[in-house]
Amino acid sequence: MALRHYTLDFNLSTAADPAKTVPDLLSIFNEQEMTETVHDTNGHGYLATLVGKNGRLAILRVHSHGLVTIDLQCYEEDNIAQLDNLLNALEKELKVLLNGNITRVKRLPPLVRGAKIDRYLPTTDKRMIEYDIDRVVYEEDSEYQNIKILHSQQFGNILVLNDDINLAESDFAYTQAIIGSGKENYAGKEVLILGGGDGGILAELVKQKPKMITMLEIDQKVIDGCKTHMRRTCGNILDNLKGDCYQILVEDCVPVLKKYVQEGRMFDYVINDLTAVPISTEPEEDSTWEFLRLILDLSIKVLHPSGKYFTQGNSANMTEALSLYEEQLGKLSCPVDFSKEVVCVPSYLELWVFYTVWKK
Amino acid sequence: MALRHYTLDFNLSTAADPAKTVPDLLSIFNEQEMTETVHDTNGHGYLATLVGKNGRLAILRVHSHGLVTIDLQCYEEDNIAQLDNLLNALEKELKVLLNGNITRVKRLPPLVRGAKIDRYLPTTDKRMIEYDIDRVVYEEDSEYQNIKILHSQQFGNILVLNDDINLAESDFAYTQAIIGSGKENYAGKEVLILGGGDGGILAELVKQKPKMITMLEIDQKVIDGCKTHMRRTCGNILDNLKGDCYQILVEDCVPVLKKYVQEGRMFDYVINDLTAVPISTEPEEDSTWEFLRLILDLSIKVLHPSGKYFTQGNSANMTEALSLYEEQLGKLSCPVDFSKEVVCVPSYLELWVFYTVWKK
Repeated sequence: MALRHYTLDFNLSTAADPAKTVPDLLSIFNEQEMTETVHDTNGHGYLATLVGKNGRLAILRVHSHGLVTIDLQCYEEDNIAQLDNLLNALEKELKVLLNGNITRVKRLPPLVRGAKIDRYLPTTDKRMIEYDIDRVVYEEDSEYQNIKILHSQQFGNILVLNDDINLAESDFAYTQAIIGSGKENYAGKEVLILGGGDGGILAELVKQKPKMITMLEIDQKVIDGCKTHMRRTCGNILDNLKGDCYQILVEDCVPVLKKYVQEGRMFDYVINDLTAVPISTEPEEDSTWEFLRLILDLSIKVLHPSGKYFTQGNSANMTEALSLYEEQLGKLSCPVDFSKEVVCVPSYLELWVFYTVWKK
Repeated sequence: MALRHYTLDFNLSTAADPAKTVPDLLSIFNEQEMTETVHDTNGHGYLATLVGKNGRLAILRVHSHGLVTIDLQCYEEDNIAQLDNLLNALEKELKVLLNGNITRVKRLPPLVRGAKIDRYLPTTDKRMIEYDIDRVVYEEDSEYQNIKILHSQQFGNILVLNDDINLAESDFAYTQAIIGSGKENYAGKEVLILGGGDGGILAELVKQKPKMITMLEIDQKVIDGCKTHMRRTCGNILDNLKGDCYQILVEDCVPVLKKYVQEGRMFDYVINDLTAVPISTEPEEDSTWEFLRLILDLSIKVLHPSGKYFTQGNSANMTEALSLYEEQLGKLSCPVDFSKEVVCVPSYLELWVFYTVWKK
């Protein structure tokens, strides 16, 4: 049983006088059988907490600067229409009481706390975002990560790894960006995909008749979930681990990359679709950045001199993390150049940076 | 001075025993000089409110089903690191106390309430969204509406009319969709734009050398704001109300459309870029839907038999409103057909439906 948390805030041009505002508001609460406890705030304005039936709780604060805040908590199964009416009555009364002094009235959508289905997935730069998620389609804990596939009305199914949105069925823009935005010709080429368990990149590239695509995905359970629930992304490509021009190896990419380096294997394209925060680090790598650099270094080593390395970077707002990443590119054992592109991936709700890297 | 509101919620597989969890949590609060008032909830779990220095307020609830919720309010100028530490200590302690019983720990980004710059602009389907808005670039109250241009780190400047996001500088996808997604040839054509005060459509269409574009924008102050602050959208097209192949009439479109109908004027394209909720309704139209139908009817009357009418619809999630709109299309004085397209407009943070309408 979730808790609905409503807020109603008034910004004022000058501080409100509690003696003139509080009594009328309290009487509205009292009509709803909510009784107040007034607290001593030590000079920080008026503060009352009000407890009512059915576990209802309200907080009324007339701050000592120009702000009035009201919180209202109730259980999801409560009489929501009644609580909407209560908030309407409070808003209406405050508009009368504070007439001429109001600079903003803000009544946000209620926070739903403790719900069975969690709809709040903040952006990378830590902003509050409520998704239109209405059901959990798949959930598994693999030995590597928590895997969820969530249904969104507008985005279709969304693959979420360790509570981080990876890809939704609406996100062809992601796949398009990480394979070079339609400017590459994969026909007859050797391609290596790191990660990519949702099958989006693989499904798109096989259409172009490459010589061979090798995909290194560590987590069979991601493949299992996506092949059933992300078919708008992967089509039928994950139904078989091997096809005419592709093979999926369910393996950690690091030892495989090391083996490829030793064997002198080369690829025309390396596409790094690993999750932003790596899920498997060898003991030798003690930080995320070192792991990222290791992957980059190994990838560049197996890249043809005229080849291209594609990867997703980070939110366009994460300017510091992006700079750090670009610094890593200067520290590789083989000198490289890079370009970047900012792309709108529908389900991310933040613009995303993609990189192209090549040998100098 | 804004109020920061933190939440920390634990979902549990079985209800927690307040006697075993509350004392240790209270002692953490007490260390921060916060003192509790315990409230009688009439059988709805444990509830304490805690007041501390600097206007700090906390709410601790051990609900009688499997949920523990903590709220913490403080002023923005408070010692935020200290409050983060308090939340860290509470989270750590609860993880120990509830060990094995926890199904989810949720600590959302804090709600910032009453801030000078409001970052919360909910979606059309009423979900909570926090934007990365960091300054107000322009604000005017015209005789028609409140006009704001807000700066977002990732989206550039955003035109907001009556607190509704219209267009950001990042949103070329909107302009592209409402002029027919690159499938039309405007060369030598007669075009009518309804609204469009941000100049995005006009700036894009003049590149295609139409015969004449007439734009009917009611609000000079929208044009004034956009020509200065939305130049990534409008370029220099709004610097003059008249050019080689365009004219901007600062007028209510309804009487002008009526005049065009009387004169028998015809256009190859009519592009309706009016705000979703109309800002000017003649006394004869008593509802939003009637106004929408009036505009549609007049627009279709001035449309060449082979012409096209483009418009934005609504959020893809607003299925009922979309159906109602499509119903209106069946009620026009001239029979029409239509098609629709779902487009990702970056700053909207929800998928958006665009319509193409033509005479049967």
